Amino acid sequence: MATHKRAAVMQMSAATDTGKEVKLWGGRFEDSVTETVEKFTESISFDKALYKHDIMGSRAHASMLARQGLISESDGDSILKGLDEIERRIDNGDFVWRTDREDVHMNIEAALTDLVGEAAKKLHTARSRNDQVCTDLRLWCRDAVDSILSRIKHLQVALVKLALKNEGLIVPGYTHLQRAQPVLLQHLLLAYVEQLDRDAGRLLNCRERMNFCPLGACALAGTGLPIDRFMTSDALGFTAPMRNSIDAVSDRDFVLELLSANSITAIHLSRLGEEWVLWASEEFGFLTPSDSVSTGSSIMPQKKNPDPMELVRGKSARVVGDLVSLLVLCKGLPHAYNRDLQEDKEPVFDSVKTILGMLEVSAEFAQNITFNQERIQKALPAGYLDATTLADYLVKKGMPFRTSHDIVGRSVALCVSNNCQLQELSLDKLRSISPVFDEDVYEFLGVENSVQKFSSYGSTGSECVSAQLNYWVTKLGING
Amino acid sequence: MATHKRAAVMQMSAATDTGKEVKLWGGRFEDSVTETVEKFTESISFDKALYKHDIMGSRAHASMLARQGLISESDGDSILKGLDEIERRIDNGDFVWRTDREDVHMNIEAALTDLVGEAAKKLHTARSRNDQVCTDLRLWCRDAVDSILSRIKHLQVALVKLALKNEGLIVPGYTHLQRAQPVLLQHLLLAYVEQLDRDAGRLLNCRERMNFCPLGACALAGTGLPIDRFMTSDALGFTAPMRNSIDAVSDRDFVLELLSANSITAIHLSRLGEEWVLWASEEFGFLTPSDSVSTGSSIMPQKKNPDPMELVRGKSARVVGDLVSLLVLCKGLPHAYNRDLQEDKEPVFDSVKTILGMLEVSAEFAQNITFNQERIQKALPAGYLDATTLADYLVKKGMPFRTSHDIVGRSVALCVSNNCQLQELSLDKLRSISPVFDEDVYEFLGVENSVQKFSSYGSTGSECVSAQLNYWVTKLGING
Amino acid sequence: MATHKRAAVMQMSAATDTGKEVKLWGGRFEDSVTETVEKFTESISFDKALYKHDIMGSRAHASMLARQGLISESDGDSILKGLDEIERRIDNGDFVWRTDREDVHMNIEAALTDLVGEAAKKLHTARSRNDQVCTDLRLWCRDAVDSILSRIKHLQVALVKLALKNEGLIVPGYTHLQRAQPVLLQHLLLAYVEQLDRDAGRLLNCRERMNFCPLGACALAGTGLPIDRFMTSDALGFTAPMRNSIDAVSDRDFVLELLSANSITAIHLSRLGEEWVLWASEEFGFLTPSDSVSTGSSIMPQKKNPDPMELVRGKSARVVGDLVSLLVLCKGLPHAYNRDLQEDKEPVFDSVKTILGMLEVSAEFAQNITFNQERIQKALPAGYLDATTLADYLVKKGMPFRTSHDIVGRSVALCVSNNCQLQELSLDKLRSISPVFDEDVYEFLGVENSVQKFSSYGSTGSECVSAQLNYWVTKLGING
Amino acid sequence: MATHKRAAVMQMSAATDTGKEVKLWGGRFEDSVTETVEKFTESISFDKALYKHDIMGSRAHASMLARQGLISESDGDSILKGLDEIERRIDNGDFVWRTDREDVHMNIEAALTDLVGEAAKKLHTARSRNDQVCTDLRLWCRDAVDSILSRIKHLQVALVKLALKNEGLIVPGYTHLQRAQPVLLQHLLLAYVEQLDRDAGRLLNCRERMNFCPLGACALAGTGLPIDRFMTSDALGFTAPMRNSIDAVSDRDFVLELLSANSITAIHLSRLGEEWVLWASEEFGFLTPSDSVSTGSSIMPQKKNPDPMELVRGKSARVVGDLVSLLVLCKGLPHAYNRDLQEDKEPVFDSVKTILGMLEVSAEFAQNITFNQERIQKALPAGYLDATTLADYLVKKGMPFRTSHDIVGRSVALCVSNNCQLQELSLDKLRSISPVFDEDVYEFLGVENSVQKFSSYGSTGSECVSAQLNYWVTKLGING
Repeated sequence: MATHKRAAVMQMSAATDTGKEVKLWGGRFEDSVTETVEKFTESISFDKALYKHDIMGSRAHASMLARQGLISESDGDSILKGLDEIERRIDNGDFVWRTDREDVHMNIEAALTDLVGEAAKKLHTARSRNDQVCTDLRLWCRDAVDSILSRIKHLQVALVKLALKNEGLIVPGYTHLQRAQPVLLQHLLLAYVEQLDRDAGRLLNCRERMNFCPLGACALAGTGLPIDRFMTSDALGFTAPMRNSIDAVSDRDFVLELLSANSITAIHLSRLGEEWVLWASEEFGFLTPSDSVSTGSSIMPQKKNPDPMELVRGKSARVVGDLVSLLVLCKGLPHAYNRDLQEDKEPVFDSVKTILGMLEVSAEFAQNITFNQERIQKALPAGYLDATTLADYLVKKGMPFRTSHDIVGRSVALCVSNNCQLQELSLDKLRSISPVFDEDVYEFLGVENSVQKFSSYGSTGSECVSAQLNYWVTKLGING
Repeated sequence: MATHKRAAVMQMSAATDTGKEVKLWGGRFEDSVTETVEKFTESISFDKALYKHDIMGSRAHASMLARQGLISESDGDSILKGLDEIERRIDNGDFVWRTDREDVHMNIEAALTDLVGEAAKKLHTARSRNDQVCTDLRLWCRDAVDSILSRIKHLQVALVKLALKNEGLIVPGYTHLQRAQPVLLQHLLLAYVEQLDRDAGRLLNCRERMNFCPLGACALAGTGLPIDRFMTSDALGFTAPMRNSIDAVSDRDFVLELLSANSITAIHLSRLGEEWVLWASEEFGFLTPSDSVSTGSSIMPQKKNPDPMELVRGKSARVVGDLVSLLVLCKGLPHAYNRDLQEDKEPVFDSVKTILGMLEVSAEFAQNITFNQERIQKALPAGYLDATTLADYLVKKGMPFRTSHDIVGRSVALCVSNNCQLQELSLDKLRSISPVFDEDVYEFLGVENSVQKFSSYGSTGSECVSAQLNYWVTKLGING
Repeated sequence: MATHKRAAVMQMSAATDTGKEVKLWGGRFEDSVTETVEKFTESISFDKALYKHDIMGSRAHASMLARQGLISESDGDSILKGLDEIERRIDNGDFVWRTDREDVHMNIEAALTDLVGEAAKKLHTARSRNDQVCTDLRLWCRDAVDSILSRIKHLQVALVKLALKNEGLIVPGYTHLQRAQPVLLQHLLLAYVEQLDRDAGRLLNCRERMNFCPLGACALAGTGLPIDRFMTSDALGFTAPMRNSIDAVSDRDFVLELLSANSITAIHLSRLGEEWVLWASEEFGFLTPSDSVSTGSSIMPQKKNPDPMELVRGKSARVVGDLVSLLVLCKGLPHAYNRDLQEDKEPVFDSVKTILGMLEVSAEFAQNITFNQERIQKALPAGYLDATTLADYLVKKGMPFRTSHDIVGRSVALCVSNNCQLQELSLDKLRSISPVFDEDVYEFLGVENSVQKFSSYGSTGSECVSAQLNYWVTKLGING
Repeated sequence: MATHKRAAVMQMSAATDTGKEVKLWGGRFEDSVTETVEKFTESISFDKALYKHDIMGSRAHASMLARQGLISESDGDSILKGLDEIERRIDNGDFVWRTDREDVHMNIEAALTDLVGEAAKKLHTARSRNDQVCTDLRLWCRDAVDSILSRIKHLQVALVKLALKNEGLIVPGYTHLQRAQPVLLQHLLLAYVEQLDRDAGRLLNCRERMNFCPLGACALAGTGLPIDRFMTSDALGFTAPMRNSIDAVSDRDFVLELLSANSITAIHLSRLGEEWVLWASEEFGFLTPSDSVSTGSSIMPQKKNPDPMELVRGKSARVVGDLVSLLVLCKGLPHAYNRDLQEDKEPVFDSVKTILGMLEVSAEFAQNITFNQERIQKALPAGYLDATTLADYLVKKGMPFRTSHDIVGRSVALCVSNNCQLQELSLDKLRSISPVFDEDVYEFLGVENSVQKFSSYGSTGSECVSAQLNYWVTKLGING
């Protein structure tokens, strides 16, 4: 346990005789923290990721302090110049992050003091790390949302382009992973596009709700100094300052909402991953990824694996784990700030980084797969994909659906025992099951006939799908 | 293993010779499922909760089928009358739910057949259980959102009224559960109101996004029968039919979003629960719940426990667990419907029921607590709540904040060793630390002085809090 | 808000004039709880499931109280007889559970008082609901573990029998869902058996750790009355009384451990479910479930779905959700008992019920599937399953593995462009890639040859698999 | 999208003309993966943490290959020397990890080839990355368990020493955070020790179950080369080789079990954190952490926060999140290895690192707190902690417990209205409630009297607690 007596007098950024700097909040303390505690409680190893947003916030704050006369114009200028220099250094990797300076805020403030001296000591006027870190994190999350939105659109475009490349290709549609009805591949691809669209909508709502400014809430109660919270809020592009200072520093629901939205997107992508991994198997054989998105085996020379989509599926797990971490973290915390909340950052950083990667690599995969038309076509007759169309045929002839369902069920049973397709049953055989069957029944049988019959809004009928496709081409601004 | 040969001919609702009814989908099957499987796969024990929404959906569907000429007017009428009768019976508890009829849809359809005969066999025309259950669940969730919204408002009103009753009461504000700054109780109560407001916003967004109609997507591909999806969508109060039939039956993101929103609300309430449990302790002693919201101990005769708020805190766990269940459930499922999705219902039912209870009981608790003004006031001097105000005083005198922070820190250290309050330090003593202190310093010391100094937007200053309170009184329509 | 003045005098089980019974802990209370609170805080709707274990605990407690002279022999007898009668009534469904009596403990104690009068009031001597409920729950969990263990073994037996039925059947082994190497189906089935064996081991450890008796810890501090905790512990089959009374009533790690164990088992079963759903697809076509474990579609007459295994996969989600609920629940609770802990029961009940169902139905499914030998055999040549065996061939010839891996990789590439199998490459062609290939290479090619080469311990070689199979047949006591 | 044509001939570790190295598995591939895919799928950034265990495994493997004659003695020697050199370089930070070499295994194998040439190409004989990574991870987890066990003991020792320092100190025991009964602080501290003991037991079981060797399972099916799996298993300190090669490479239940155990420990520590944060508050005031384990506020000069224990509480969230990640990850994966499993490492690394930190800092905190005896003693009279003792008094006089509970309840109600303690009620007043009260009642009242009455096994009576303390002092080997 290494503790060190502190100098009685506050020495900004000055190393003590033991080589350790006195903490900026050290006034009432006689001993410095042990190394174990310092290591356990530090956040600089991860919250330095916030440096751009921290500096952005400090710029707005310093400008406001100067305009309000809380600091002099020249102090304001010194601070702003100092912040520029610090940002430049960090950008260039010329900045030394110090664990004994705890976090990104203290590292930057102390470095600023090293750089511009006395003026820097005025920057933290009417501000606490409590409102500062919330401001930083909201700014960071806002940018994150914008990045994710852009990647979502990118993936939507990749999927729509893949659809455009595969016009007319019929694939089996599944329920229970059993063949159900024939669908156009385009229709299936657009289902993902729809899901991603709701994902984007969720993020936009989340962005709007988070875009309020906590700066000026200070520790929790606000301040008696004549600050202008509307000015800093405007300068940082927020909609307005938050109405209640206690709420401003206590709540992390904006992070929870972002991580919830990411989790839903991740689940969507895990399903895409599962589906494409299935389709790339020898057994399905519906798609082949190019070598450039596949990897091999260290032992089995023949292997070519769709790893990126396996990892897309797998990485959904960490996005969910991140959300759970944050929910557990916030559970049962009293107001206002608690140190527990320091743990909010890594899950949000990880969730955002992961979802960005998942979206990007899914798009890249979409750009590098080929659907095996021939193989798919050869496989289509299996599974009685036209059975429901046949039932609809009987309904059109006036039969109650339940009865038609039963009759087709028995026709299928007949096929199973004869090892044939529905269209291979003779009219006599069909009529032996129901006299309603007529010559025109064969216009409804076979996968191509079947898929052409679909006509309802949103269905897999080719006109419906064309309309959907046009909608997305226009909405996403894709040009032929 | 109990399997039973099935009658070769479909017999609607007719018991087979083994006393078991043939399944409505039984056409191609020769054996019925074993009892273990029937018990394991049934959903009627919980999805009967959807009966009103299932009947609502069937009414809209039947009317549409009739208008489109897919069934006759008279069949349509029979179905509608039959549905009315079935709803009446279920409402009155006169309906026998049968496990061998699997789920709510099959129970109602089979009962309808028992009741109105042949016409009932036409109800399932151009419909599948896949789109039917999604429609039911969206309708159910939409109602659930409305109920939760109403309970959120109810709790907000209770909190605002509690604030109105406790004007001027100063309480310690905490960070790290250490006393930080004095705040008005009203200010703290309104922080919860703000959080609940965002919770409501999240639900409204969720409601809007979920309010699209899957009906007519059928199994997954739509249908070739001339249905009118816009008609059913309108009749059920949806914004529009969903654009893509595969998406319509595959995705459960509307449930995930609802359960995410509930989880965030639950976390908010867990924090309220924690806080009020703390405040009701002997040690804090800030609030006393009435007997009507407290319970006793089976062994310790003196106990009076704030159980409802402990359970509010605890029940947040199941809301989170429900969300996790659904995320895990949906992970990695290929399109379109998979039987796994049957498991979506219990978590959503449980989450909604739990959050409704948590909101209701929190409001009831709020209506039944008294803040112990005297005890709170007596406790206020401890903890140097005025220290930051003193630092601001020095800033106003022109001292850099960091320096003032250090000087006040040392003043506090002096108080600690003298076992006194800041306002009890003589001017001489203060000046021995910094010559900047002057006679007017005592206007800034003491909790009452301190709280009066706060003036920034959103702060705990009494004018700011009044403004906030007025905002909420108006917005929530509370009249004096 | 419905509150009721209470009778000043304690009236056991007597209805007050408002028709409400005074709570057993009601001495210091003037008002009864509101209906909202009563409904929100009651646990009788679910904890009545503990009744057998509650009565078991009360019997042991009463006998001990009598032997220690804390109650008279005749009071002891009255209590025991009363408990017998109550158990009989509950068994027969002749017992009315009352919400106003809150929980299973109070329902039984109050009913006992109704039944045997004054003696019943002595049962709760030196006992609290805090230690009582822990005792009940440990007894319940201990039984649950035994049931799960028995079902695990049942599934293991079903899998081993399935293996015995399918001797010699070669199936593709997968990595990345790509064909990797040929394996014996028996080998794969035994992999599940191994996993289940570890699941059982985990439960046995959990059982041992939980089997300590909290009874006598009372509220949290023990008691001053001369009880004998070793006697009750013995009577209930516990290893020993718990050493620390505060720990005894505070901790729920035994539930967390049980739910963790269940979660791992559930994940194992979800993988079995996924695999069998895949194998039952048209595309794989490796297995066919009998009609007795399949279900159909309400719209698509041809469908035959492996629903039980989909639900096994899906229900893993609720087992995980239950665990998360309990972890969130316990997070951050101070000692000792908190009302939050009432929420421990439903997750544990649900987790146990679900895992039992999953195990049972998996065994039933295993008993009702047929592996499609012909189809599997026909499919085997695809995917170059013999490539690694070929690489080993080269290694045996003295080539470094990395080089052999490369050479086989290039041989596969040649096959891909020639659309042929490895064994179809002429020796000349092979030698054009590497001169090391010789005539004997063809003994290593083809799936049957390949699988016969495996010989390492635990490998898929037929002798190795036979040995494994014998091990399990013996261990599980299966007779031919 | 940056793809590069590959050299047709395998060139170990040779850069291609585009500056990129051909992958070790590159034989059948024509294009290299895109940069996006390479970045998304790499694991070297985190799995390098396994390097010591990877080298350990390779040493055992190489020695076995040499003894079995699968490689020459001299190749074996070259490999072993090369591995020594590589380990030395990594230890010293002289090793360049390359992302294009994907993972720790390929980085080390390729570096070995750079170093010792041809011999290195033989190391991967009869081995796959699938069994290699499992072996590494099991070895790593085994070490992790040992480290955690040691930290658990360290914390137990710190708690027992803290108990030894505070003999005789009575504190309020709580249920529902309401004062319940008086307990010895020692008793409470030992409750944590008990919990940690079960945590250790869980880890020991987990260690035993994981300590089986997957090496030699190769890709999934074993090998036809004459390896000796018992030799490698022994060399690496495993109990035995795993029985089933498919199971060996597929399952991660050993990680799930470790993360479950960690989660339970984390929940235990979160409760300790909560409790000590509460006790350090102004309102409780029961303990004071030294400056060396406290931190201050950037704005409020008076603050001294128990941050380490807040973070202990908070960090429990990430341990739970890590477990959830892994459960979600493994859900629904078919056999055998899937790339998803690469995601198993970061959660396990994070969980272990976090739990080690939590245990360490909790011990350090325990070593740096003072219990405020005076303050605690002053606070003890509040809360009627002696009420249950009073009820036991009446029981000893022959009154049924339920009746005595009621009478004491009414006595407490009398105290509440008189604002006095139980011991301050005159005998007359007591007798007005029940004639059973006698002069000797005062020996049972007051906290000191009350605590002395406890005598049951495991109770808070001082003899019982002494016995518990002695047990732990001996078991943990603490000497005075």
